[in-house]
Amino acid sequence: MADRLVLAPDYLLPDYLGPDGGADERVVGYSEGRIPDADVLDRVGFFVPAYIEHPNAEWMAKMPLLEVVQLPTVGFDSVLAHLPAGVTLCNAAGVHEQSTAELTVGLIITRWRGLDRSARDMPAGTWDHRRGRSLQEAQVLVIGTGGVGTAIASSLEPFGCRIQKVARTRRDDIAGREELPGLLPTADVVIVALPLTGETLGLVDDQFLSAMQDGALLVNVARGQVAVTADVLAHTGRLEFALDVTDPEPLPQDHPLWSAPGVFISPHIGGDTDAFPRLARRLIGHQVQRWRTGEQLVNVVGVG
Amino acid sequence: MADRLVLAPDYLLPDYLGPDGGADERVVGYSEGRIPDADVLDRVGFFVPAYIEHPNAEWMAKMPLLEVVQLPTVGFDSVLAHLPAGVTLCNAAGVHEQSTAELTVGLIITRWRGLDRSARDMPAGTWDHRRGRSLQEAQVLVIGTGGVGTAIASSLEPFGCRIQKVARTRRDDIAGREELPGLLPTADVVIVALPLTGETLGLVDDQFLSAMQDGALLVNVARGQVAVTADVLAHTGRLEFALDVTDPEPLPQDHPLWSAPGVFISPHIGGDTDAFPRLARRLIGHQVQRWRTGEQLVNVVGVG
Repeated sequence: MADRLVLAPDYLLPDYLGPDGGADERVVGYSEGRIPDADVLDRVGFFVPAYIEHPNAEWMAKMPLLEVVQLPTVGFDSVLAHLPAGVTLCNAAGVHEQSTAELTVGLIITRWRGLDRSARDMPAGTWDHRRGRSLQEAQVLVIGTGGVGTAIASSLEPFGCRIQKVARTRRDDIAGREELPGLLPTADVVIVALPLTGETLGLVDDQFLSAMQDGALLVNVARGQVAVTADVLAHTGRLEFALDVTDPEPLPQDHPLWSAPGVFISPHIGGDTDAFPRLARRLIGHQVQRWRTGEQLVNVVGVG
Repeated sequence: MADRLVLAPDYLLPDYLGPDGGADERVVGYSEGRIPDADVLDRVGFFVPAYIEHPNAEWMAKMPLLEVVQLPTVGFDSVLAHLPAGVTLCNAAGVHEQSTAELTVGLIITRWRGLDRSARDMPAGTWDHRRGRSLQEAQVLVIGTGGVGTAIASSLEPFGCRIQKVARTRRDDIAGREELPGLLPTADVVIVALPLTGETLGLVDDQFLSAMQDGALLVNVARGQVAVTADVLAHTGRLEFALDVTDPEPLPQDHPLWSAPGVFISPHIGGDTDAFPRLARRLIGHQVQRWRTGEQLVNVVGVG
């Protein structure tokens, strides 16, 4: 293993190499889109595919000595088909979640304090003071208890709201999905933080939205297709929406959602902050060290 | 004391009366701007002046039986001159702070995730994805350790930033004001949460701003005059600003601050949320009960 190479995107070279990035000749960077020469691929033992949809996953077929694939993303479905036998697949759990939680808190405050209106008032120099809505004592439903949902609930903790988490199955103080009909009418904010699966596709439909009380806020930081866009549109005016994801995406310029009342849209920026490359480089550095010293890897999501 | 009246603005009638608000005939509501009849004033023992600048503080001179003045605000300077001898003055500490902390977190996320730009992109249907900046591992200075500064620091806790509090005098892990020249160059965010006093007037001047590093964000949720507007303007472009307060205020329509690069302005909405009347009514209710039963009042800030 001593002479096997680490192959990673230039901007994700592992952190332990230090700021100059070139101290370890067994680490090779690549520019996304440019496949390295065969004499490099022949020696790769640890591979970091490109962000975000792993377009270079097929490079793995040309790496006879490959042992570990460390993704820069949480999602890994698109890589599984390319994973050679015996290769360990790790994801980047812990790298993106807090950025999405931050955005979620920002989206709620933006809507409830009218910061979106203030932003649009600025070019005309309009000072329009209005009373806002506070998270204090608000009833908040967080649907999804994976990394993102958990980070969202923790980030809301100091704001004095009442947080009810909802998971697929009931456990401890977490409600089960089947309790949603009873919980939705009580919520001031409903946050959707679920992966897109066959089960969650279209979860936020007319029935779901009809159960929410007038004036409540739905926040979607999951995937656009978890909500039915036509049903969202039908409830604008009665409900408020803060959507970081839409269906379709990007949202076409002439889509009615852009101008629907009480809707705020951000362009799918959930996990994408400057923290991503920093935390990803750190994770990759630790994983490379574990691999080289024979320690157990973290974030293992599959073996080919 | 049994027959002395409680006089409070209609919308701040104490909570313990229950939802119908009329169970206790010794509690009298007033519409702001309309002075009650003398036979009411003659019997007032507990008075809640009007929000926000207490324009009816002079009513106190006509209340011979007055014992307690409960303000709906934290600030109490403007009432002191009118306070009759022997009357106890209480403020509303705890009622507004968390709303301002919420806004502060929202302002940082708005600037760092470009939610203000997204809001302005919406009318044209522009989907403009850009990488944002995360609070994770960011260095945050909170200047002011009163109720608001403390609430801000607590609210930022789960976001994984490094928080340094700054007070007038150094104590424990709180830095002293004299350490600012060394701290300002290290900060990614500087939050000003100080009362306006002779000492803090113009604190954020050219020297202060010059000490901040390129791209850092100054958040002012204190009072406009804590910053020197001309100096703020001179540093736009190099620094970012999120200002809930300005000098002058309201900011005139043609003021250059509205269109300066990297500046976000909200119209002094810091403490003003729906939580205010709710928490104020609850505080007033508790205080009236304490007063009637001879218990010690809380939030006492002076005696006339």
